[in-house]
Amino acid sequence: MNFIATEHQHIRFNPLKGEWVLVSPHRMKRPWAGQIEKLQEEAIPRHDSTNPLCPRVERASGKVNPDYSSTFVFTNDFPALLEDVPSPPDSDDPFFHTKAARGTCRVMCFHPWSDLTLPLMTIPEILEVINRWIQELTELGQKYTWVQIFENKGAIMGCSNPHPHCQIWASSFLPNEPSIKDIKQKEYYAKYGRPMLIDYVNRELEKKERIVVSNNHWVILVPYWAVWPYEVMVLPRRHLIRMTDMDEEEKVALANIIKIITTKYDNLFHCSFPYSMGWHGAPTGSYLNEDCNYWTFHGCYFPPLLRSATVKKFMVGYEMLAQSQRDLTAEQAASKLRELPDIHYKVRVD
Amino acid sequence: MNFIATEHQHIRFNPLKGEWVLVSPHRMKRPWAGQIEKLQEEAIPRHDSTNPLCPRVERASGKVNPDYSSTFVFTNDFPALLEDVPSPPDSDDPFFHTKAARGTCRVMCFHPWSDLTLPLMTIPEILEVINRWIQELTELGQKYTWVQIFENKGAIMGCSNPHPHCQIWASSFLPNEPSIKDIKQKEYYAKYGRPMLIDYVNRELEKKERIVVSNNHWVILVPYWAVWPYEVMVLPRRHLIRMTDMDEEEKVALANIIKIITTKYDNLFHCSFPYSMGWHGAPTGSYLNEDCNYWTFHGCYFPPLLRSATVKKFMVGYEMLAQSQRDLTAEQAASKLRELPDIHYKVRVD
Ligand SMILES: O=P(O)(O)O[C@H]1O[C@H](CO)[C@@H](O)[C@H](O)[C@H]1O
Ligand SMILES: O=P(O)(O)O[C@H]1O[C@H](CO)[C@@H](O)[C@H](O)[C@H]1O
Repeated sequence: MNFIATEHQHIRFNPLKGEWVLVSPHRMKRPWAGQIEKLQEEAIPRHDSTNPLCPRVERASGKVNPDYSSTFVFTNDFPALLEDVPSPPDSDDPFFHTKAARGTCRVMCFHPWSDLTLPLMTIPEILEVINRWIQELTELGQKYTWVQIFENKGAIMGCSNPHPHCQIWASSFLPNEPSIKDIKQKEYYAKYGRPMLIDYVNRELEKKERIVVSNNHWVILVPYWAVWPYEVMVLPRRHLIRMTDMDEEEKVALANIIKIITTKYDNLFHCSFPYSMGWHGAPTGSYLNEDCNYWTFHGCYFPPLLRSATVKKFMVGYEMLAQSQRDLTAEQAASKLRELPDIHYKVRVD
Repeated sequence: MNFIATEHQHIRFNPLKGEWVLVSPHRMKRPWAGQIEKLQEEAIPRHDSTNPLCPRVERASGKVNPDYSSTFVFTNDFPALLEDVPSPPDSDDPFFHTKAARGTCRVMCFHPWSDLTLPLMTIPEILEVINRWIQELTELGQKYTWVQIFENKGAIMGCSNPHPHCQIWASSFLPNEPSIKDIKQKEYYAKYGRPMLIDYVNRELEKKERIVVSNNHWVILVPYWAVWPYEVMVLPRRHLIRMTDMDEEEKVALANIIKIITTKYDNLFHCSFPYSMGWHGAPTGSYLNEDCNYWTFHGCYFPPLLRSATVKKFMVGYEMLAQSQRDLTAEQAASKLRELPDIHYKVRVD
């Protein structure tokens, strides 16, 4: 019998992380007996005077939000990272090894209305979000080694507030995920003399099997080694090291492609599609003075849904103790997303 | 100001995985606004003729379960790993790297009754589970490199079937998690000439800050680098390489301590405490003929609950894109668990 990737189990390697994923496409055939998630409420008021993310509302800290009209950023009232804390004593004990962590956590509202999400925003509105991301990265990057911009969307992703927003956690240390990507991209660059992810996107553009959508400046694809069912990566065509390297055309093109991928996501299961997403580029702080040519700026979307708006993929048991496992192949996921319309199933009411 | 671990954020290193965790204990003070989980139904029938894990029931495959009276093992009707599939072609492409994966997935029922869980089982009943684990590991380990025994418990952990059971996935490849533990334990052994986790458990027994419960043969502790709020590790006092190395006394002592930790878990939030747990020891297959003295057999419990039976820790956004983050410290979690009674809040009705 010949090997057929959409039928026969195999493992795939993720060169960005040095990890494997188990692909078991034959498992798509099993009946679903697992947990059914609650469907998220759809009728969200445009303004809610008890919602701490809305304009003019007083937050838990006693501060009152301004009557903002586009984006709005403030420091999280219950941050996981504080700017100024005492440092733990130094130790090189192999088992009880602690280091200092300094940082700050900000919340960024995308729009004054609670009933909007990125796919329902206009290109100029999304462009304001992108410009604000760049402004925050520039400012926080002066002081901090890592600035993680990320969006948790949907109650299933631990996000209880439907108001369109993201978070920005800046830290004095380089966290695990970017740290391993730093190492792997550096190794590749040393070996091949070219940035890993630029080589990768060019290979994918030739193969065309995993591309979801592309424009003159950006490519969105399901990586060969994707773990989440509909995971995608946002890659630039030109070699950008950090988000701050984008030119004006690239920003507009990014706004366009963000609108398209989030629209396709919502159209997949006719729901406001939950995910965690974020941006990765070369570290900042002292790295700003170093040669980071081995890095490529990119975005990651990790959506949990597997079969419908209420059936998610559980990353538990085997995944926690052994290795990530997926059912449908990356190519099957890419083809499903590619074929979905670019027009949102819902109409925005202004 | 002096550094106080229970008040001031810091990062801690996990030497078994080479990763860091962000500890932000001040965050315990924030009010909870996140998702509330459904409370799991408590009235479970002892026998349900539609439950494919019960004795005498016909499963989806058409096979009928025997009228079993202690443990019962069968091959999963929808396995993620199959024994005999065609192999993908070889390739050393840095981006499209696939390897063959062969394996099998079994389901193991702990007891004929659906309304029991491990903490409500007797020591002899738990001992039968342990003996069956050893039998399965021995048998599957002859052929396969890795035999992952794991239990997903609770709907929140993707487990819809309340019948007490675990799964056993055996594979021809060494998965990511044991692979990194293999590397790190080997490095430690090369450097110090002693098994890492035996050194670790001895250090913890001196410090006493993170021990939850111990007996003559086993120690359960919250590891210094724990990620999940009430994560624990089960460690042997004697150097065991694999589960198959236990003597009779160690087996009975393990049954005892499993009953205690799962009882404490249930007592924490007065609910059937959800978790994923599993066992890690030296790999099997061809590793059986190699010197694996650097390995120490141990168990891991990863429970998702944070504040109550309905409020869990979400490993999303920052965790997926940057680094795991926890609120309460490992020492605080250990002390809470330590102080809980060893007697279950529910009484078993026979
Ligand atoms: O027990 P099931 O239904 O086979 O599946 C469950 O456990 C598996 C192993 O941890 C996971 O891969 C699945 O995502 C989860 O739903
Ligand atoms: O948005 P919140 O409420 O601060 O918190 C949420 O996102 C954080 C960052 O991804 C996670 O650490 C929390 O577990 C999650 O509940």
